[in-house]
Amino acid sequence: MNHSPLVFLRSIRLSPPSSADKTADADRLIAALKQEGFDRVVIPLDILRRLPGELRKNGFELDLVLGVEGETVSVIDISRKRLYGLALDIGSTNIECALFDLSTGDELLGWKIGNPQVPFGSDVLTRVQGSMMGRFDLLAGELLEGINRLIREVCSLNGIAYDEIVVVTVAGNTIMTHFFLGLDVNNIPLSPYIPVVSSAVFLRGAESGLMTNRNSVVYVFPNAGSYVGGDIISGIIAAGVAQEEAPVLFVDVGTNVEVTLGCRDWIMTGAGAAGPALEGGIAGIGKTAEPGTIYKVRIDRSTGRLQTEVLAGTEPQGICGSGLIDLVAALYDSGQIDQAGRFTVAASGVVERDGVKAFTVYRSGEVELMLTEPEIRNFLISKAAMFSFLHVFVRSVGLTFRDIKKIYIAGALGCGIDPESAIRIGMLPDVPRERFIPLGNSSLAGAGMVLMNADLLAEVDRISRMVTYREMNEDAELMNILQGAMFIPHTDPELLKG
Amino acid sequence: MNHSPLVFLRSIRLSPPSSADKTADADRLIAALKQEGFDRVVIPLDILRRLPGELRKNGFELDLVLGVEGETVSVIDISRKRLYGLALDIGSTNIECALFDLSTGDELLGWKIGNPQVPFGSDVLTRVQGSMMGRFDLLAGELLEGINRLIREVCSLNGIAYDEIVVVTVAGNTIMTHFFLGLDVNNIPLSPYIPVVSSAVFLRGAESGLMTNRNSVVYVFPNAGSYVGGDIISGIIAAGVAQEEAPVLFVDVGTNVEVTLGCRDWIMTGAGAAGPALEGGIAGIGKTAEPGTIYKVRIDRSTGRLQTEVLAGTEPQGICGSGLIDLVAALYDSGQIDQAGRFTVAASGVVERDGVKAFTVYRSGEVELMLTEPEIRNFLISKAAMFSFLHVFVRSVGLTFRDIKKIYIAGALGCGIDPESAIRIGMLPDVPRERFIPLGNSSLAGAGMVLMNADLLAEVDRISRMVTYREMNEDAELMNILQGAMFIPHTDPELLKG
Repeated sequence: MNHSPLVFLRSIRLSPPSSADKTADADRLIAALKQEGFDRVVIPLDILRRLPGELRKNGFELDLVLGVEGETVSVIDISRKRLYGLALDIGSTNIECALFDLSTGDELLGWKIGNPQVPFGSDVLTRVQGSMMGRFDLLAGELLEGINRLIREVCSLNGIAYDEIVVVTVAGNTIMTHFFLGLDVNNIPLSPYIPVVSSAVFLRGAESGLMTNRNSVVYVFPNAGSYVGGDIISGIIAAGVAQEEAPVLFVDVGTNVEVTLGCRDWIMTGAGAAGPALEGGIAGIGKTAEPGTIYKVRIDRSTGRLQTEVLAGTEPQGICGSGLIDLVAALYDSGQIDQAGRFTVAASGVVERDGVKAFTVYRSGEVELMLTEPEIRNFLISKAAMFSFLHVFVRSVGLTFRDIKKIYIAGALGCGIDPESAIRIGMLPDVPRERFIPLGNSSLAGAGMVLMNADLLAEVDRISRMVTYREMNEDAELMNILQGAMFIPHTDPELLKG
Repeated sequence: MNHSPLVFLRSIRLSPPSSADKTADADRLIAALKQEGFDRVVIPLDILRRLPGELRKNGFELDLVLGVEGETVSVIDISRKRLYGLALDIGSTNIECALFDLSTGDELLGWKIGNPQVPFGSDVLTRVQGSMMGRFDLLAGELLEGINRLIREVCSLNGIAYDEIVVVTVAGNTIMTHFFLGLDVNNIPLSPYIPVVSSAVFLRGAESGLMTNRNSVVYVFPNAGSYVGGDIISGIIAAGVAQEEAPVLFVDVGTNVEVTLGCRDWIMTGAGAAGPALEGGIAGIGKTAEPGTIYKVRIDRSTGRLQTEVLAGTEPQGICGSGLIDLVAALYDSGQIDQAGRFTVAASGVVERDGVKAFTVYRSGEVELMLTEPEIRNFLISKAAMFSFLHVFVRSVGLTFRDIKKIYIAGALGCGIDPESAIRIGMLPDVPRERFIPLGNSSLAGAGMVLMNADLLAEVDRISRMVTYREMNEDAELMNILQGAMFIPHTDPELLKG
């Protein structure tokens, strides 16, 4: 990893003042930094106040904490040895962070909490409605408090002090970063969908309200409008889309499915609501990935028995998106469900509850995990939406799936999805398997990359200006494809190939 | 007066967003300002938070309050119609201010209060000693509180709100501006006399602790070292020294006598403690100029009677520097004191009190203003110091008084001194009278000029870097001249001419 973090330590030795050189302390420091190539240096007042004492205590040698903010370098702190940075992904459902040791570039810890706004509405638009009805301060306050709780936990787990966190990079969808910044979200969901700010925002820690060093650099990713948040820009950085010569596809499955297609010269993005089914919103036994979640499913052809893999190896408590995809593919492959997702006569372990057929995924003692037929139907709607979306998106720029040499899968499905299963049920296109590249939380990964590489700031800006948004909801072709895509794999299997 | 104040109002009409132009609010504003030639625009977070509401309330027309801070333009406030600026001179003895209407450039009010640090020591070095002994926070706090009291009075007198004050320019000696900024003063009086900062400091109102608009631009003049404060730099601006082709002399009499000699190409400055005698420190009846102060004195040759002019026309309560100079000149002219300042037999109205001869300046009812012989002798020491100082200073660069076409007299003597009297007693050089130009509080005047003319910022920087300080205390010639200068006008009257 290129190692020029947004905030870094620089030891500097100043020539002490003398009767021949009466330069003031701050001017002496600025002159020395200019010598090292830093042309615009800012020293905050609280640092100015400590400067003469620190200089004389240390014989005019200083350990400076310097921070890059646009074209300016600021003195963040002095006489500090350990520096940490936090990459932050503010998702609608979860807030995730990664802690970095800035001197080594090592990622020390990943950690997350649920977004404390969820009780106000799992759907982001509900929260914006809440804001319109006068609960903005409450919502923004809950979010900030949640993030600070996360920071407290991270600090406590690593035995570090708040003021040793000297830089934070923040990625999130446009509504989330607006809540974080305390900026009006009311115009975002109303035509013509105007955010308060799109360009990157630099703040000081104290100004941001974060529990970090008061002078810490807080960088909020730029967005490319109301529907292309900083999380997508950050993901594009993580996937390296803007460095590719030929178009690549980048699919981020979170609360929404977000699709990005592009290369060095152009990047197009779009989003659709296909997520809940894949992340735990449709099936009653659906869960996000955590200990006790089934994430992999096979059916033993000879015995017809389910083989499941469970996170942390504990007793199953639910199933996540990747597990659900595996399960539906296995049920279809073993002839237990038909193309429409209905149980066949061959289905084993199917019971009827309240007039609804349900398949037993797991049963032991009091734990019983069932998947109902309507849930499978709903899942097929979701997979249909995702496939149709990808298909129409790729076609809209005159390409076919065959033209695309890399398909990054990020988000909820990024860690665990088995492309084979997804292709089997017609959720992902039928292209050579090695073209699928898992990415995990790409938004968090991009935030970490920028944290550790100030050179990427310009690239982030460039990307945020080149990304165009394609509105898909009114696309006529989408509706046509969608109808057939609700079947396994599709009423027209040839579509899967291009 | 060139009228491009540091902070100004700019009405701007933005094209409203549409489905064809979804630019975010802040980016829309920044783009419009770029169109008007502002390349680097900063919008503080609190303004970002208000921006979408203000834009939509006003049909995308905005009254912007813009502030110049170095090479950056900041949005200070929005939707504000009345803008005021404050020029501030933090003197060791008094804090003076001038209030400006930024839209017209009119100076609305001059106002002052005593420096609340005076009880901690009338002498600045005593205050620095206090700071060394742990009273820094107290001293800095008293100063800030005093300035805020001054601002409250000014606001109340003019019926303006604190947040209508959107810019403050601050001039003061290096110790005073350090106290104002909360910066360590301890190294200033110790060799090699190093301030914390010499370059200009830009702050936000909230950061400075001033009771002004939280985003107001607070500009603190640069200094040219511990002994050449921002007040001198500001005075040089007011006198226009740096625009002169030929050398001019600029004498500022406050607690010290500060002398500046220079032109476009070089400026030299020095200071000496000759002030108290001239401002009220030596004579028991001495006062600073205020109602009831005698500021002009003549002796009617025919009657031998004193004719005095009193500020505000009220009963005399004391005499200020200019009055004292007049009085000593008149007593000498009328033969009542000799060259050494001793009363002659011709002196009228001289009484003896406790073995000391004293001249009756004024007597009516209970008011009795007396000037004693030792006081006259002390005054002569002061005037000797001042003349010798000017003489040696001018000679040190190979010039004579004859070479100097303009002599600015600022500070305590700036408003009222009669050059004729000062020349008569040998305090000022004997050059054509029209060369003397009164300036008043030049530090305050310069602060007001910069407030109303952002173009001067670069000139102030240039001056602060070109000024050199000449240490006079160890000058051998000074001691020689001083001996003779204690007589009226001098033992060698030729010296007065060059």
